[in-house]
Amino acid sequence: MIEEKDIVYFKNLVGEENVYNDKAHLIAYSYDATRTRFEPDAVIFPRSEDDVSKILSYCNEHSIIIVPRGAGSGFTGGALPSSGGIVLAMEKHMNKILEIDMANMVAVVQPGVINMDLQKAVEEVGLFYPPDPASQDYSTIGGNVNENAGGMRAAKYGITKDYVMAIRAVLPNGDIIKAGKRTIKDVAGYNITGILIASEGTLAVTTEVTLKLIPKPKMTKTAMGVFPSVHKAMEAVYKTMASGITPVAMEFLDNLTIRAVEQTFHKGLPVDAGAILVTDVDGNLEDDLDFQLSQIEKVFLENGCSDFKIAKDAKEAADIWFARRNASPSLAVYGSKKLNEDVTVPRSVLPELLEKFYAIADKYKINIPCFGHTGDGNVHTNVMVDGNDPEQVKIGYEAIKEVFQATIDLGGTLSGEHGIGLAKAPYMSMAFTDEEMNLFRSIKKAFDPNNILNPNKMGL
Amino acid sequence: MIEEKDIVYFKNLVGEENVYNDKAHLIAYSYDATRTRFEPDAVIFPRSEDDVSKILSYCNEHSIIIVPRGAGSGFTGGALPSSGGIVLAMEKHMNKILEIDMANMVAVVQPGVINMDLQKAVEEVGLFYPPDPASQDYSTIGGNVNENAGGMRAAKYGITKDYVMAIRAVLPNGDIIKAGKRTIKDVAGYNITGILIASEGTLAVTTEVTLKLIPKPKMTKTAMGVFPSVHKAMEAVYKTMASGITPVAMEFLDNLTIRAVEQTFHKGLPVDAGAILVTDVDGNLEDDLDFQLSQIEKVFLENGCSDFKIAKDAKEAADIWFARRNASPSLAVYGSKKLNEDVTVPRSVLPELLEKFYAIADKYKINIPCFGHTGDGNVHTNVMVDGNDPEQVKIGYEAIKEVFQATIDLGGTLSGEHGIGLAKAPYMSMAFTDEEMNLFRSIKKAFDPNNILNPNKMGL
Repeated sequence: MIEEKDIVYFKNLVGEENVYNDKAHLIAYSYDATRTRFEPDAVIFPRSEDDVSKILSYCNEHSIIIVPRGAGSGFTGGALPSSGGIVLAMEKHMNKILEIDMANMVAVVQPGVINMDLQKAVEEVGLFYPPDPASQDYSTIGGNVNENAGGMRAAKYGITKDYVMAIRAVLPNGDIIKAGKRTIKDVAGYNITGILIASEGTLAVTTEVTLKLIPKPKMTKTAMGVFPSVHKAMEAVYKTMASGITPVAMEFLDNLTIRAVEQTFHKGLPVDAGAILVTDVDGNLEDDLDFQLSQIEKVFLENGCSDFKIAKDAKEAADIWFARRNASPSLAVYGSKKLNEDVTVPRSVLPELLEKFYAIADKYKINIPCFGHTGDGNVHTNVMVDGNDPEQVKIGYEAIKEVFQATIDLGGTLSGEHGIGLAKAPYMSMAFTDEEMNLFRSIKKAFDPNNILNPNKMGL
Repeated sequence: MIEEKDIVYFKNLVGEENVYNDKAHLIAYSYDATRTRFEPDAVIFPRSEDDVSKILSYCNEHSIIIVPRGAGSGFTGGALPSSGGIVLAMEKHMNKILEIDMANMVAVVQPGVINMDLQKAVEEVGLFYPPDPASQDYSTIGGNVNENAGGMRAAKYGITKDYVMAIRAVLPNGDIIKAGKRTIKDVAGYNITGILIASEGTLAVTTEVTLKLIPKPKMTKTAMGVFPSVHKAMEAVYKTMASGITPVAMEFLDNLTIRAVEQTFHKGLPVDAGAILVTDVDGNLEDDLDFQLSQIEKVFLENGCSDFKIAKDAKEAADIWFARRNASPSLAVYGSKKLNEDVTVPRSVLPELLEKFYAIADKYKINIPCFGHTGDGNVHTNVMVDGNDPEQVKIGYEAIKEVFQATIDLGGTLSGEHGIGLAKAPYMSMAFTDEEMNLFRSIKKAFDPNNILNPNKMGL
């Protein structure tokens, strides 16, 4: 528990205006996108890495829990102060783009920078930061790094971890460390950057991130294909990729999702289709894009695609993307409560995974519409139930457990993008052996022997 | 120390024919590419992951040191049994390509597979494994992963870490763990794969690696440009890359290296040039390659390139690459002993780094010819001395220390590709703070509390 003397200490350290323990602040920092709430004991807005170091050092000595927080937009509770303590909120002061280095194609940012602000800043100078989580308009780079955020462009460009070159961080004991460098190659010392990515703020507090940038592709084109089944669509996806074409995005909607969007928005979608694939290609040459699209069309048509359409302009591209972008809200037609997961499997077994999901849906007499990223096997699985019916909600969670088991049985992971946090912690023992969980605990202890940093997350 | 009873135990476990402590074997497994020698107490050839687990479990209980070994081709002594113990040699049994999964574009291999054997196998089915260390004809994937090997193609395709999706490994206590999955996205649990890469066999013994593959580019073209100075050449490099062109390779030779190759092979190289750049571009379309080359030519000519040449066929391409491929042996003209390092800096400061190196060379009245990978700032720095003159060798090592200091001062790293091992361990304190070294030691202890696995490496 935090005492008044602690608050006094922190106010002296970072200024009165950066330390709060009034009810309004505690409520404001009690939530994230899971809608679960846990009030902290205090909220502090550090002004600098030095502040973070002094706060952690004090908390480590006094056994005070610290929970670092970006935008609080996470889907798994990673930023929730589930055992109280201090929320260390980065959005107020530590939110600067420190440098865009054109010669090395690198950006250096503080953890509170919003993903889209970074994207815009680098695109203005002809560079490109590919990771584009659906939360890109508000989620922060600090959160993106700590959850290893993905996005639509992962099939071609990879995910956050593929762009993190270096991290400055503060360890729970207050030590400031630099991990990695502004170099593409670096094999001196353990890969601390690697272990910090996706560590959900449980090992260290990120204070600065150096990100790799790439040249901005000069043009993008969009196409879509209609398939009789998810199975046929997936064959088309992996054959496209094996043919040497790597689309930026290759997104799918299953039949239930197509019907939901059509029922909600009346866009004339093919409601009897087994699946729709929406794809973007990019590059620097019109000819190259046309070549990519012609290859995709060829492979699609060879694999059962009944209708292939290339967008002629930005408006047609937006129309094609409309169904995918509005998939999530449309699913309300199947129930007021959506238990959505982001399981991921090797892309070849995605059809088999969906068959298992539909069998689970049949068993529990519910709907499980699915859509997502076929290019990387990441499925947004939506178990739809009536939120006002406790029995239905209970059934929903039973179905979720089977969804996870089916995923793990097919070599998949509990989470492709959202992390474990609190929400998926109960399922960790399904995915990891005792030996693996013991290793996670040893690593946690090596960084945070007093367990002050974001405890109880990840099932540790 | 190993006792006779230990040898008996191991022979019972893995068979007599897989355990040796005769002098011939101890000598055969005492070396690596550093030419330093340390004899182990025994050499064991494990047949399986299960063997590795039982061997480690026994060694952990009996405080016997274990040093995992691939091909022994490392440049920094990572595979040397510097404190004796058992060399665990993977090349005899654990050398199989287990699977090439076309649909997911993934290869699953044992640690003893030779890099080039994997490249050939995947190229036969139209896929591509980009990491191509200079040792590719003999170095193993296990060694490549544990040293995070780079190569010529890093500028476009990245390095080993960018292709490791999953690792199976045995912890020092014998526990078998799986880290990562055959999925592009996976954010469940700590990124154990990330910390194992480049850990130099000090944390766990790798028993299986799952590698990402990409479609094989259909064609490659080669070009070269002659520049008045390294500075001009580097401006051309970063402006090329910022223009949206990412060459596969962008290699440089400095004036001293050009002169050495010419003196050795008489190929008509421009001996007054400040630098030569050799570049490869690849892709699927002739037009695209020509576009890339025309952009490179434009940027090169705008930045002082006096002679730009595109290879018309494979023979001309081989001629262009001749100088780069024969740079290393040619340097013998400057001295019988070569202290070669693989320092790496952010590519923009490479000219400044070379100026510092030449100043060091002047100070010590020696030659320091440099060549390497401009695309990623990785310089092969060769301090040339007379190996028969102890005073010269001493001067060489003094120069090396200044080479490292200059690199670190410019934001660079002790090693871009070769790792730390024993050879660079004395310099770790120049590159890392006490806090960072303490963190490394905590991580080592979390994995290997009894310090049985490849001790004394990395300055730990």
